[in-house]
Amino acid sequence: MPIFLDRGPKPLSIVGVEDGSFNLRGPGKTTLLVSVLMRSGIIEDMRARDIVIDGLDATKKLDEMLRTLDFDLIMLAGVSYAGFNLIDPISLYETFRKPIIIISRRRPNNIAVKEALRRHFKDWKIRWTIVEKLGPIYEVESMPGETKIYVELIGIDLDAAIITIRETAICCRIPEPIRVARLIARGLTKQRRRHKI
Amino acid sequence: MPIFLDRGPKPLSIVGVEDGSFNLRGPGKTTLLVSVLMRSGIIEDMRARDIVIDGLDATKKLDEMLRTLDFDLIMLAGVSYAGFNLIDPISLYETFRKPIIIISRRRPNNIAVKEALRRHFKDWKIRWTIVEKLGPIYEVESMPGETKIYVELIGIDLDAAIITIRETAICCRIPEPIRVARLIARGLTKQRRRHKI
Repeated sequence: MPIFLDRGPKPLSIVGVEDGSFNLRGPGKTTLLVSVLMRSGIIEDMRARDIVIDGLDATKKLDEMLRTLDFDLIMLAGVSYAGFNLIDPISLYETFRKPIIIISRRRPNNIAVKEALRRHFKDWKIRWTIVEKLGPIYEVESMPGETKIYVELIGIDLDAAIITIRETAICCRIPEPIRVARLIARGLTKQRRRHKI
Repeated sequence: MPIFLDRGPKPLSIVGVEDGSFNLRGPGKTTLLVSVLMRSGIIEDMRARDIVIDGLDATKKLDEMLRTLDFDLIMLAGVSYAGFNLIDPISLYETFRKPIIIISRRRPNNIAVKEALRRHFKDWKIRWTIVEKLGPIYEVESMPGETKIYVELIGIDLDAAIITIRETAICCRIPEPIRVARLIARGLTKQRRRHKI
């Protein structure tokens, strides 16, 4: 796959994507999908949309969120959002032609994912195609001495990805754009449930 | 007024408070009040509540948001939120015993505020008491060469306030906790209006 990472003199602007929490599964239930744009540890933009729990609208929603944003690289927190609402990184890559780093706190277990999809979804094959297409899983030490993270890559080689991950993992092993997106998404959904904002 | 700023070896944790945007005034209309907790340029917490446009619930809402938060200092973006929904910094100070820095992009014009309150609100006297109690307005160069900001202080002296403001104005003349709170609040309300999140 071609690589579209242009490391000019300017620091990279990186979009991190995370989802909010939720209590209940059920038809029509939603949670938030949040994107945060950061450059050199500074937040430059923040967007949010509702996505359906176990739905299949996350790719489309993220696509809409990113269309008017100027960025160099996407960091996803895995591909499953709001339960099993999968974000298709290949589709994002084809649209935006920007490298994507998929980051997981634990080693992704695709066999378990396939089983769960088969068990719970009639349309499991559509969902499985998204997971199946992903490349190899790399173990990366994002911060010296911290537990490693797991990384899947699209449109970027491992060396460049490691540099980017280490530059952005400034306060814990999770790169800042994802850490901040999670903090905002979880903060908002928790308070939305409690205070109906 | 006593000063409760404990500058230990640990960097200060500062809460920045800002509001979202809104289109229409009208009964029951709301926008967001967002608080962001930052320490050394790192976001550690983010909270949000709805507040009524031109209402008087902002102080109470902020009070609730901060009660379970551990912080050293509050930065307010003025005292008028969601139109003329005033946050009473003296009341916050009495509750939390933490210094408050009120920051304004333009020089606050309290005579104009009084006139507007008188013209638009039957309860203008309650609102005016909040503004009236504020101390002198200082002009501060938060970032070398940038337009100055205007500052009102509670429980902190000017020298300590200037140090704190300069330490936190890392990417523009507006200190980072307020800049980020605004970015999140405006980002969310804009998208809430457009996409009904």
